[in-house]
Amino acid sequence: MENGTDSRSKRKRVKEVSNPNGELSFEQYLKSNVQEVEQALPGYVPANWDIPSSLRESFLYSLMAGGKRLRPILVLAAAESVGGQAETALPAACAIEMIHTYSLVHDDLPAMDNDDFRRGKPTNHKLYGEAMAILAGDALLTHAFYTVVQASRKHGASAEAVLTVVEELAQYAGLSGMVGGQAADMLGEQGQTTLEQLQYIHEHKTGDLIVASLRAGGHIAGANAEQIEALTTFGRKIGMAFQIQDDVLDVEGEQAMIGKPVGSDEKSGKVTFPYFMGMDASKREIEQLTCEAKEALTAGSIPYPERLLQLADYLMKRNH
Amino acid sequence: MENGTDSRSKRKRVKEVSNPNGELSFEQYLKSNVQEVEQALPGYVPANWDIPSSLRESFLYSLMAGGKRLRPILVLAAAESVGGQAETALPAACAIEMIHTYSLVHDDLPAMDNDDFRRGKPTNHKLYGEAMAILAGDALLTHAFYTVVQASRKHGASAEAVLTVVEELAQYAGLSGMVGGQAADMLGEQGQTTLEQLQYIHEHKTGDLIVASLRAGGHIAGANAEQIEALTTFGRKIGMAFQIQDDVLDVEGEQAMIGKPVGSDEKSGKVTFPYFMGMDASKREIEQLTCEAKEALTAGSIPYPERLLQLADYLMKRNH
Repeated sequence: MENGTDSRSKRKRVKEVSNPNGELSFEQYLKSNVQEVEQALPGYVPANWDIPSSLRESFLYSLMAGGKRLRPILVLAAAESVGGQAETALPAACAIEMIHTYSLVHDDLPAMDNDDFRRGKPTNHKLYGEAMAILAGDALLTHAFYTVVQASRKHGASAEAVLTVVEELAQYAGLSGMVGGQAADMLGEQGQTTLEQLQYIHEHKTGDLIVASLRAGGHIAGANAEQIEALTTFGRKIGMAFQIQDDVLDVEGEQAMIGKPVGSDEKSGKVTFPYFMGMDASKREIEQLTCEAKEALTAGSIPYPERLLQLADYLMKRNH
Repeated sequence: MENGTDSRSKRKRVKEVSNPNGELSFEQYLKSNVQEVEQALPGYVPANWDIPSSLRESFLYSLMAGGKRLRPILVLAAAESVGGQAETALPAACAIEMIHTYSLVHDDLPAMDNDDFRRGKPTNHKLYGEAMAILAGDALLTHAFYTVVQASRKHGASAEAVLTVVEELAQYAGLSGMVGGQAADMLGEQGQTTLEQLQYIHEHKTGDLIVASLRAGGHIAGANAEQIEALTTFGRKIGMAFQIQDDVLDVEGEQAMIGKPVGSDEKSGKVTFPYFMGMDASKREIEQLTCEAKEALTAGSIPYPERLLQLADYLMKRNH
């Protein structure tokens, strides 16, 4: 997941961070969590379900297409940060990755962003057709709610905690959350977008599912209200930093590293943070938000914040 | 909801059915339940949520566009059939109507059935554009899971029962359920459909959400395993009868009464039950299935089956 000198310098820095949760370096931790999530994901589709083969293929094609697996890792790290077991949070982690994947499949559709490639591979509708891509997205969203319930069915999480996660996932992914952000993004392309609208779009289209990930991990692990609040602030700050970083990378990046044409947002008429604030101010904003995010976790309520702190730094320094 | 002589003869028949649940005639019962559901539906969108106005309009346009409200009424009647309160089941009823509505919005899209009208009104994408219709469908599906949780939050249903409803809704509406049925339907249009494939399509595209409705009402009302089994058999049978009836009405119906061009299925290359079995055998099958459905409820496990029995007859006799 990392390249060249940037990776080496980060590895050195990571080693200086104390790690009471285990022996793994941060890079090893990331890698082992990505593996755990990717091994678990297809297993949440019960083997005895009778599914049309094209739908199954289309569903799994996008779900297993790689990516940083950031949201599920945040779920697992949030659960561990308050003393919970990552294993219990694994269904919620995989559920949120399904929701994230459905949003990408639908966003790529011709009627939306009309993208032919994602992460260097053909988008779902290019391979399976528009109808099947719409249905695969619908199935991914639906199956997320089946999957999160398995935290209770298979790992003994309390029904009350899982119900809270269901309610919050539906809120943060829905009308006033991720779907609301995507709708605002679509509407914004039809006219002049203000900085205020851009903030609404970033907060909801990207930020809300990141916040939901941290809260879900917390709820499953039995976090108290103060801990949920700290995780929420952390998620809100890194979510906004993450999106500004995406904008910056789109301006600066190289096509091969992010898998879509550089400057494609600008071409499509999308406005970005650097458009309003300039590149330097955007980068300072990313650092400031990351700093504030980390402060929320080190104020005292979170007993094991290390992995989340490392994740915040990792996201700030990423180049894709 | 009814017209002319058919309505009058039915009203007479309904009066002969004893009704221990209340004083309302069946027509009054239907009407009052439709009103209750339609009054409740918009209330499940919290007033303080910040939602882009076009998305809110598109969401509510399809949700409040009328229709029989069959599935929510089945939820309420199933709850009452095992001695539960309809009020406790209302969130689940409204949630299932949201899932049904999302499926119609997405099915009507140009990439799917490409329908311009539904129930005599422009389809969602004709009014709001394809992107917003995709998002409104996504939001309806997502919000269904927010809504069903309110059975626990606002009406005291047990978290365990609501979690079971979440799990089953996701199963019956998802990969091997309604979405699977729609995928098989789309794939079927690309070639020769067999009777076996048609049965898979009907069972999943239409039948599964009807079964889920009955089971949801039962679970919320604390039904035991034998009662859930009886409600499931009833739902499976009336679901199949309902879809064969739809096929028959499409062949026989008049454009004004069903709101889409008569024979539109045949024109689009869709095969139907009458295509395979002929009209007379299809009608006999509807009666046979309805009879078997009613038997499942009168075998002894369901204490108050009357409304469901009346609903089965009403569906068999409907002309739209």
